[in-house]
Amino acid sequence: MSRPEALEWSADNCTIGRALDILGDRWSFLVVREVFQGIRRFDDLTVRTGIPRTVLTDRLGRLVDAGILRREPYREPGARSRLEYRLTEKGLDLYPILLALHEWGDRYLADPEGSPIEFAHRSCGATVDLVMRCEAGHDLARTRDVVGRPGPGARRRSA
Amino acid sequence: MSRPEALEWSADNCTIGRALDILGDRWSFLVVREVFQGIRRFDDLTVRTGIPRTVLTDRLGRLVDAGILRREPYREPGARSRLEYRLTEKGLDLYPILLALHEWGDRYLADPEGSPIEFAHRSCGATVDLVMRCEAGHDLARTRDVVGRPGPGARRRSA
Repeated sequence: MSRPEALEWSADNCTIGRALDILGDRWSFLVVREVFQGIRRFDDLTVRTGIPRTVLTDRLGRLVDAGILRREPYREPGARSRLEYRLTEKGLDLYPILLALHEWGDRYLADPEGSPIEFAHRSCGATVDLVMRCEAGHDLARTRDVVGRPGPGARRRSA
Repeated sequence: MSRPEALEWSADNCTIGRALDILGDRWSFLVVREVFQGIRRFDDLTVRTGIPRTVLTDRLGRLVDAGILRREPYREPGARSRLEYRLTEKGLDLYPILLALHEWGDRYLADPEGSPIEFAHRSCGATVDLVMRCEAGHDLARTRDVVGRPGPGARRRSA
């Protein structure tokens, strides 16, 4: 059998790997999920996730350092100023990853009654799905219609 | 300020959280990336990823247990039969998550020369992107056009 062609190429500069360096941690992406749901404050972020407070402090710091969240001051009447967390543009652009995880989770891991959350088109209310489309305008029905190939930054792997 | 509505709902049966229980680990998704590139054998899987062998053994076992990979025997001439790893249908359905991570990584984390990998439509060769589309047929240009809401399996959170 011939060897897989991918073995000839380096994955050192792979952008999937770099994304996973930031997001490839169960807690980090749970924090992102919560902030997408409008949960922005430290104490609130512990409520639905069960993240230990020290872990949450660490993950929030990392997400801020990665430019995904930013801190914003707020003040409740009579209380001192505190910080809440908002998604940056870079953070908002994680939405397709969230949707992709949700679709796959719904298909394979949902309870019989279905998912506790769904995503809808804000202006018409219809549920939203991800579609794979090529730049020639074709919708791809099956993952087998997609093929990976070396991109502009591909480098030969040194032996 | 009013409290975020999401706080009223439980995330215990959230399918995103369940997907992250399986995939929310840097190494697990790197293994999936490699198998999508046609890298199926234990020794080959260590080549581009640098995953320690004990970790790889553990993650392959978990991905098999989760029904994402299956083991398939193969035999090189003159050697004993060994096992390689193939994606199941459940595993192949992870492709949109891979594409979403790749798109986000490309936008924010790529080297100046670009990504080492790209994804193309097998039959026409044009590169593939993910598009958000609602069931009424509208393409959604911006993540702000999407809104999360309680789904059929939503449960009130017990205080």
